[in-house]
Parts: sequence; structure tokens; C-alpha cells
Amino acid sequence: MNEAQLVARVRELFSPHIGDDAAVVPVVDGVQVLTTDMLIEDVDFTRDIPLRFIARKSLAVNLSDLAAMGALPSYALLALGLPPWARENVDEMLTAYAEAAREWAIEIVGGDFSHADKLTIVVTAIGRIVTRPLLRSGAQPGDRVYLSRPVGGSGAGLALLGRDAPSYSEREFIQSAIRRHIDPEPEIALGVALARAGDVTSCIDVSDGLSTDLHHLCDASQCGAEIEKERIPVFPDLQANALSLGINVRDVVLHGGEEYALLFTSSLRESELSTLLGRPVYAIGRITAERGVLLKEDGIAHPLVAGGFDHFE
Amino acid sequence: MNEAQLVARVRELFSPHIGDDAAVVPVVDGVQVLTTDMLIEDVDFTRDIPLRFIARKSLAVNLSDLAAMGALPSYALLALGLPPWARENVDEMLTAYAEAAREWAIEIVGGDFSHADKLTIVVTAIGRIVTRPLLRSGAQPGDRVYLSRPVGGSGAGLALLGRDAPSYSEREFIQSAIRRHIDPEPEIALGVALARAGDVTSCIDVSDGLSTDLHHLCDASQCGAEIEKERIPVFPDLQANALSLGINVRDVVLHGGEEYALLFTSSLRESELSTLLGRPVYAIGRITAERGVLLKEDGIAHPLVAGGFDHFE
Repeated sequence: MNEAQLVARVRELFSPHIGDDAAVVPVVDGVQVLTTDMLIEDVDFTRDIPLRFIARKSLAVNLSDLAAMGALPSYALLALGLPPWARENVDEMLTAYAEAAREWAIEIVGGDFSHADKLTIVVTAIGRIVTRPLLRSGAQPGDRVYLSRPVGGSGAGLALLGRDAPSYSEREFIQSAIRRHIDPEPEIALGVALARAGDVTSCIDVSDGLSTDLHHLCDASQCGAEIEKERIPVFPDLQANALSLGINVRDVVLHGGEEYALLFTSSLRESELSTLLGRPVYAIGRITAERGVLLKEDGIAHPLVAGGFDHFE
Repeated sequence: MNEAQLVARVRELFSPHIGDDAAVVPVVDGVQVLTTDMLIEDVDFTRDIPLRFIARKSLAVNLSDLAAMGALPSYALLALGLPPWARENVDEMLTAYAEAAREWAIEIVGGDFSHADKLTIVVTAIGRIVTRPLLRSGAQPGDRVYLSRPVGGSGAGLALLGRDAPSYSEREFIQSAIRRHIDPEPEIALGVALARAGDVTSCIDVSDGLSTDLHHLCDASQCGAEIEKERIPVFPDLQANALSLGINVRDVVLHGGEEYALLFTSSLRESELSTLLGRPVYAIGRITAERGVLLKEDGIAHPLVAGGFDHFE
């Protein structure tokens, strides 16, 4: 596709209004939330991931940022730096964006193309606050620390990309873990519901890893946390398949990035909050007044260091 | 600077609120304008340009897109893919962004950093429509075609990057042309004023070159244009210095990109419009009902092909 054909395809897939110097959108009085994420080939992803999933995921990670703020996504802009191999398959990317935008009820209103040596994707997403924004900074001592869903699948999936296995159940697990890694679901509905629930005090999405993002939340809230290893929900079948597939469960659960689960705090009990939200959420520990993040394991609490490096491993 | 120091510096320079999953901004009822531009080293710019000007220009080109829509800039987000040489000098970039943001009255509310082999910059800018949006598509047969300022300087400056010259006046010219190329001024105030002036029917900024952008405007408006070569305002001293410096005046004036002048249409006469706006603007021709863009030169009209390629050169 040449430049004119590319623009024609974009207008066909996204909006006939695309093509002016900027996109024109209506807004209503209130609070808007803005986020941008840059993803670069061989830094943030590899060509092991099919192009349509690279596209879809680049939108998902931005919508996850909006979800962590309790915002409803409205618009997105795409900036694509395309090397020749991606330019030849740009229709696969654009179609994936159009499908994902429909699924997540967001309008892709504009963007930009450039040439690049490595596939470079910058998505900017804009959302609307329906009730109040959720921040990282509101956690209070005594609050429970919650995860929205089991973790560890994304880190396992990353390690298993391109791997095969002898048994049917291992192959099944590999597929589900890779799917979690390459096609994460942003917790859009949950983010809006948490903002509406008055007793939720802070929120962040697990993009850097549970340990690191819990540190981020505690730093912003000027508090600490103590979480219990036994209470952290683990990705289905991860424990059963880890040994034979060479996955370090502790590592992918505590430190694996790109989970896009929400990590949040609330004074409510797990049963109360799950009932209020109409879906399970998982209390994994408590916020403490004393700074520092602790992991309680077999009855003993150790410091939990951020970022995949654990002094007590 | 490590990641934490970088974020601390960003908060210090731009806003203490930066650091959540997304930026929270207030909006008022109305119409918003969104644009994003991707600039990649060795594709869109080279390291011949000082880093602080690369940064400043990456913001300017987005604000020029907003100006072409008649919007007042409000917010920007920065996504920076940094190779080691740029990472070492990132403070120069960030300081330039902070200064430019102050100068152009825009708030930088968030962003993202990544590693990259080539310096990669994606700025997303958001503006507010004060009266009405200017589109490319409103030009009417009989309207005059206007340029907001002389052109040709940016193309000359690009050709002259790193060049020296024997005479003082040539060196002066080289400096002013390079300055036009590396530090373009977005026509923010003019864009808002054109939107307010009811008789302005269409607008685009000259980023691809006068010929190409006039084609864009005519295509969007489903009309043609005839412009007069003698009426196109030429960058000061370009004509006088072109021969000795080996610059093709015709080429840089008609086809040189990155001018960021506004190209717009109005039924008003040049004297009327200049008076209304309180500054000179330059009528260079007329919109025609018949499709196609013509250049009248020495009394004869030839087709003006888009994009630096001219059949009659």
C-alpha cells in the first residue's frame, strides 16, 4: 500500500473523518484521563508474537492504564513506525485495531505513520471519568490489598513462546499461558465499578509485576504493605505444569510483568467487595502504616524487593 | 539518570501529578482536537540538529496541526524512545520541552519512555476549539488562496545544515534559514483568529510542501486552484543568496516541506483580511470549480504536481 491507499484504508476501517490535520471530537464537562505507551520491537515485544496480537495488545495496555484510573475509554490515536515487513502486513494490524476498538467500545480517531527500522507503536488513549478518578495514592493503613485475577500466566507465557511439549495437558497449558501473555484483557468494566464503589482507596494495573507495582502504590500512598504468599491467586494449572516446563512459579507470580490485572486497596472484606462487584476479587494482604513491602510465607514476613530481584530467594 | 531519577525530573519540570497510570485533566463542554506525530531519527530528522531543537520542533509540529484546525492548545503527552546518546542528554530534551510548553501555554501532562536504537519521538497534542474547527474541506470556488508567511526558508535551511560560506551576508542567510528549519513557529494565534473570522473557509498547515498541501486542501474540498508564482511570498534573502549557495528557489518554495505556515482560503480580499487579522497574510491565487492545481507563471498556467516533482521544471 502506498501512502494514499493507507489513508484510504484507515478511513474505511476507522472513520471517514480521518485525514484532517487533527481529529475533532465532542467532549462534555468533567474529568478526562490521558495516557500514552510506546512499544518497540526487540525492547517491549518480539516478532514471535503475531502482528495482529502486537496491535491488539498495544491498545489493551493503554486501556488497562485507563481502567486503573477508573475511566471509561473514549478515543485512541495510533502512531506506527513501520519497517518493510510490517508495512507489507499493515492491513493485518489495522484490521486488528478496528476489531479491538469495536470490542472495547473505543473510537480510533487519528494517528500517524512513519518508516522505522524496528516496529514502533505508540498508542494514546483518552478516557472519561464517570464518578471519580482512582489514584495510586489513596491507600490507608488497614486497607486490604486486592488483585482482580490470578497472576503468573503472562510471565509463564512469555517464557513459553514458541515452545512445544509432549503431553496434551502441557500443550493446553502452554496455549493458555501464551494467550494470557499476547492477548491480555484490560479490566475496563472493573475499573469503572471500583471507582463507583466508594470504599476503594487506590488502584494500579500490574504492568511491571506484582512486587514492583505494589511498591509503586505504597510509595505513592506513603505507606507499606504485607501480603501473604498463600493468598495470591495463581494462574490456572501453572503450579501443576511449572516443574516439567521449567517455569519458576514464585518468580512469574511475584515479579512477572504485563499481567494487566488491577491491584487495588479497600477497607471492605473480600466477600463484601466480591458481592458488591458481582465477581470475584482476591484479598492478598493489608496496607501497613510502616513503609516497606513484606511478603509473609510459611508464617514469616520477609521484605519483598521490587522487580524480580528477591534477597530471600 | 535511572528510571526513578528520570520520573523525578519529569515531575519537577512538568507537574508533580505525573506518575499515575494516566493523567487526569479537567475538560469543559465543547469540541476537542487531537493529533499525534511520530518523528524518527534518520527518517524525519538527523543528529545534525541540536537535541533541544529536535525536542522543541517535535512539539511545534503538533501545535501547528492544532493551529491549522483553529484550536487553542491545552495538553501534550510525550513518548520518547531513547538510544544511549539521547538518554545521556535527556535533561536537555526535557528542559527544552518545559520551556516550549511555557512559551506556547500548553501543559505537558504525561508520557512514556522506552529504549530505542534510533531516537523516536511521538508527541500527542490536545486542543480546544474556541469558536469552530477549521477543516481542509470547506474551500469554495472563487475563494482566495492564502499563505500566512513567506515560504522556502525551511527547505533552504535543510539543504544548508552544517554549511559555511565566505561572506557575512551569506552566513547571516544560512543562519536564518537553518533557524527556520530547526525552530519553526506554529501559527497558534493566527489559527484561532482565522476560526473566529467567519469568512475563512478551509485551512491546512504546510508540512509536506506548498504544492502537496494545496493538493490535499483541494482534494478534501473537491475543487481546484490556480496560484500565481509571482504572488508567493519568498523567504527573506532567499532569492539573493540562492545562486551562490546552490539552492533551487523554485523547488524549496513550491515543494519544500516543514514550513508550518498556514495555507487557507477566504472570500475576503488580502487588504480586508490583513486588516481584520491585524497582520499581513498573502493571497497567492484562487480556488476553482474545476479540479486540478495550476501554477500561473509569466502569464501561462501549467499543472502544479504535488510533492517536489514538476513536469514543467
